[in-house]
Amino acid sequence: MSVEPFDAVDVIRAKRDGAAVPEDALRWMVDAYTRGYVSDAQMASFAMAVFLRGMERDEIRVLTDAMIASGERMSFADLGKSTVDKHSTGGVGDKITLPLAPLVASFGVAVPQLSGRGLGHTGGTLDKLESIPGWRAALTNEEMFAQLRDIGPVICAAGSGLAPADKKLYALRDVTGTVEAIPLIASSIMSKKIAEGTDALVLDVKFGSGAFMQDIERARELARTMVALGNDSGVATTALLTDMNAPLGFAIGNANEVRESVEVLAGGGPRDVVELTVALAREMLGLAGVHDADVEGALADGSAMDMWRQMIQAQGGDPEGELPQPRETETVVADRDGIVARMDALPFGVAAWRLGAGRARAQDPVVHAAGIDLHVKPGDTVTTGQPLFTLLADDAARFARATDALTGAWDIADDAPAAQPIVRERITA
Amino acid sequence: MSVEPFDAVDVIRAKRDGAAVPEDALRWMVDAYTRGYVSDAQMASFAMAVFLRGMERDEIRVLTDAMIASGERMSFADLGKSTVDKHSTGGVGDKITLPLAPLVASFGVAVPQLSGRGLGHTGGTLDKLESIPGWRAALTNEEMFAQLRDIGPVICAAGSGLAPADKKLYALRDVTGTVEAIPLIASSIMSKKIAEGTDALVLDVKFGSGAFMQDIERARELARTMVALGNDSGVATTALLTDMNAPLGFAIGNANEVRESVEVLAGGGPRDVVELTVALAREMLGLAGVHDADVEGALADGSAMDMWRQMIQAQGGDPEGELPQPRETETVVADRDGIVARMDALPFGVAAWRLGAGRARAQDPVVHAAGIDLHVKPGDTVTTGQPLFTLLADDAARFARATDALTGAWDIADDAPAAQPIVRERITA
Repeated sequence: MSVEPFDAVDVIRAKRDGAAVPEDALRWMVDAYTRGYVSDAQMASFAMAVFLRGMERDEIRVLTDAMIASGERMSFADLGKSTVDKHSTGGVGDKITLPLAPLVASFGVAVPQLSGRGLGHTGGTLDKLESIPGWRAALTNEEMFAQLRDIGPVICAAGSGLAPADKKLYALRDVTGTVEAIPLIASSIMSKKIAEGTDALVLDVKFGSGAFMQDIERARELARTMVALGNDSGVATTALLTDMNAPLGFAIGNANEVRESVEVLAGGGPRDVVELTVALAREMLGLAGVHDADVEGALADGSAMDMWRQMIQAQGGDPEGELPQPRETETVVADRDGIVARMDALPFGVAAWRLGAGRARAQDPVVHAAGIDLHVKPGDTVTTGQPLFTLLADDAARFARATDALTGAWDIADDAPAAQPIVRERITA
Repeated sequence: MSVEPFDAVDVIRAKRDGAAVPEDALRWMVDAYTRGYVSDAQMASFAMAVFLRGMERDEIRVLTDAMIASGERMSFADLGKSTVDKHSTGGVGDKITLPLAPLVASFGVAVPQLSGRGLGHTGGTLDKLESIPGWRAALTNEEMFAQLRDIGPVICAAGSGLAPADKKLYALRDVTGTVEAIPLIASSIMSKKIAEGTDALVLDVKFGSGAFMQDIERARELARTMVALGNDSGVATTALLTDMNAPLGFAIGNANEVRESVEVLAGGGPRDVVELTVALAREMLGLAGVHDADVEGALADGSAMDMWRQMIQAQGGDPEGELPQPRETETVVADRDGIVARMDALPFGVAAWRLGAGRARAQDPVVHAAGIDLHVKPGDTVTTGQPLFTLLADDAARFARATDALTGAWDIADDAPAAQPIVRERITA
């Protein structure tokens, strides 16, 4: 006879039949799965039941807490300054962490950005930074603490000790069609952020074609769920709902996104990237108790750039180092006069991925020089033959499948599209 | 890159989002699962999606057909007589196959009853027959054909070659909380029956406390689904919806159920067992083209009993052999005068299981003498101190947990319960 206090089949059946799973049973389920007593098949069935039946707020809190309890819990209490983190649900051309972390840190706040690598059509922050010669993502906890204390911003790989249950569950969800469930997404993101020990957290929850959540209602529900989870666990958390229908900025890839980030830190850069970076910086600084900061000033006067250089150097990178260039390029031009009415983020993301900027399997390398450089954005006027965007790759054989992905991905029309702000809503506790 | 024509995640997501899975994708899913390319976790997630989203009639047909295609397909075409099988969805005290197969065969019809063993609170036909000294369940295909041709009835173990995909999927469903889904139950039962090659099939679909399906509406839906599947595949199929709220007959167990079956074959036996046996025999004979058979006559005149003896002897059993007796008994008596208003099948089934009549794991043995003998049935008048039922076991230590299961399992009241027929509905194509 088993000495386990619960039976996985009872837990699965309760959720399947629409009940809330009692706290002790749900904690056991996560723990027993991490230990390997509950099988992948049982957890997959449970995840699908959660997908289709949902979870109450309290169940999501317990699930998150159980995943935190599966691993180590860090603390930044001894740093002597407040810490604030940002998490994006992922998009196309989303390099915002790169200018944002040094910008916020330039106001004396510590910014621990424990980041991941890209999988599928959304890029990974670590992949982008690894375009910089010498830069390394892996830091020990001691190195990370020292950099937070002595400099301020750190962007590094999350250690494997944080929420191992989430790591195992995420890999399972990926192959069992159970990724897009709000309770599972929210607990996955928040377990790692709460375990990390940040004082405050700003969530960039994206909606639209290039986002995880296509429609703003689902993005809002996810944002509200995560904001509640964070605040319930003592992490001051807010969220911005931001538009991910078109790629962010002009660069989609890795090295080209670093270049664009440096332009923003130099006081220039694309209007949408600057708009979102500034909005997120204000939100983060507000949570850290720094009000009325001159955020644009820190971009214009070089203080954010100075922080960037220190951050890159501290992790072995050369801020002046030459970024890789693609061996092959192919430029697509306008076939009519008009106004760019639409550039759909998802196909541009998929095309950049197929060019080598992203990976299909976790163990694959990325091609740092690969990606897409846009020359125009929605709302821009173009004439026949004018370059719209350039595909970048190390192998010209990649162009065909990337071009396939881009079929129907943009429109040139007679009228300009309605201008929309990037940040649509702010969600607070 | 994979050379598989489909991706399991796409199939899972389609069902998850409420779509019908296209025929070629569903056939691939079953085949790839049988081969081990689709993992248990993926199939478990799919099964839960089917549980909560359902399947259209055509999807169930394809699923059933794909499971048939995973193994061998038998044929009784060379027998020279028609074949008719019966399948029960399982109940408490359900020994009907034992008198029914020889009864039907006494009219010149071949009755191939490929049966299973019990798991949980519902008993297994093979376990009951193995109470008979010398009787063996395992026959070769040649032995089974010879017995069908030369005698008529055969009750034996289904070979492992029939629908191996179902065998694998059934074991998975058992541990992932996905057993009770109508599309999965229907395809599981019917894939084996269709692969077996019977000409006709009568389904005894039970509802009520001791049944798989608690309510008659779900039982009706299951029956309709299976009747459609059978007829769509060329097997003349009908179903009876029968009441499983109280145990069938007076005997629950193995050896005691054989004894009760022999009473029925001798022209006696409990009223409800006779009623159901006769109704199913009429239904089976009708499908086999034998109309206006004197079914009660065959029980009264010994021709069914004669067929029983031949059937048992052909499989090495001694029809006169002594059946095992329990070492320990404990009798429960009435604590008031009144009328037995209720005896709830499920707790009596669970109690018999705990006494040793059933098994918790497929590899466990059963205790053939264990079980429960009822002395009264709902509707009977009793006086204080009158025996209600006797628990049978080989070890008196078993009585405590069996008695626990029986708490609240019966009522004695002032008024008689409303009498209901066992057979409630007949479902045809």
